[in-house]
Amino acid sequence: MKDENVNPWKIKGARQVYDNKWINVTEFDVINPSGGKGIYGKVHFKNVAIGILALDDEQNTYLVGQYRFVLNEYSWEMPEGGGPEGEDYLEAAKRELLEETGLVAKNWRQILRVHLSNSVSDELSIIFLATGLSQETACPEETEQLAIKKLSFDEVYKLVMDGKITDMMTVAAVMKLKLMLIEERPMLNF
Amino acid sequence: MKDENVNPWKIKGARQVYDNKWINVTEFDVINPSGGKGIYGKVHFKNVAIGILALDDEQNTYLVGQYRFVLNEYSWEMPEGGGPEGEDYLEAAKRELLEETGLVAKNWRQILRVHLSNSVSDELSIIFLATGLSQETACPEETEQLAIKKLSFDEVYKLVMDGKITDMMTVAAVMKLKLMLIEERPMLNF
Repeated sequence: MKDENVNPWKIKGARQVYDNKWINVTEFDVINPSGGKGIYGKVHFKNVAIGILALDDEQNTYLVGQYRFVLNEYSWEMPEGGGPEGEDYLEAAKRELLEETGLVAKNWRQILRVHLSNSVSDELSIIFLATGLSQETACPEETEQLAIKKLSFDEVYKLVMDGKITDMMTVAAVMKLKLMLIEERPMLNF
Repeated sequence: MKDENVNPWKIKGARQVYDNKWINVTEFDVINPSGGKGIYGKVHFKNVAIGILALDDEQNTYLVGQYRFVLNEYSWEMPEGGGPEGEDYLEAAKRELLEETGLVAKNWRQILRVHLSNSVSDELSIIFLATGLSQETACPEETEQLAIKKLSFDEVYKLVMDGKITDMMTVAAVMKLKLMLIEERPMLNF
């Protein structure tokens, strides 16, 4: 029986090949678990991907729309942003929600903590459910050009199930909330 | 009103900074949607991330365990693998399922098509539900050292809802199947 705590990969060398404000890329010389020599390119994320699914008292939720540079396409998603490693992720979530939608939430609950793409990157995503909402003024970052939509949660759930929303963080958050609503509705009345 | 078809990012220059068998990284000089100058590092994936949630007639599913190099930790996940761009993704899914578990499935249904990390990468994930299973012989790739577990779907669902599985593709696939089982059970009897 293999010991899950023992790393079967051996690292023989490493060189950083790229670095910017958000990521760096390192190429490792490795011996793989089967004993073969090879290289492994790892993308390290300097931020945690924070997502906020905001649900108001009438079961509406909020999507932001933006043109995603890396996809060359427009995407509707829950509010998302980067939380620097070591920062309080709940504080980062509060800041992102306020910046992108102008919303302040009384109640916060972490609903997902996942690795987004674990063959190549160490990107961690932490997703919160925010309820008890009140509207303040949005103040998007200079680089962002966001549109905002308030939609019923049912409508957003349908968009997800029909494959009309393709952002994985949003897809997973909406499915998780739906399952929570089905299984433990009372817990949502904080 | 903004036109969602118009890319508000302008590209002033681009240089590839890294390339291997699986990814390449390009740094772009950009003008962001607000008119500010900056750089954008994009990670291009040469493969689509294929996932297979296999469900047998007794509602069991299959997880594979492996030490994830980029996370420095062990991870239990559904069978996953890379499908080269342009390849038939269903054929890639059939191949991965057979390689990793020795299973052959009569019925296939695409249940998710999502972008995993759209702030930095263009990685696309396509996830299939496979049913009507029969057991052949597994033949893992040379670089893989996999353990396999057959668990009831209910048990895997509980691991996901409790945050014990952190691979986003597996988390999303399991939640999607649960919602399908709740909402449209008859459709699963192919």
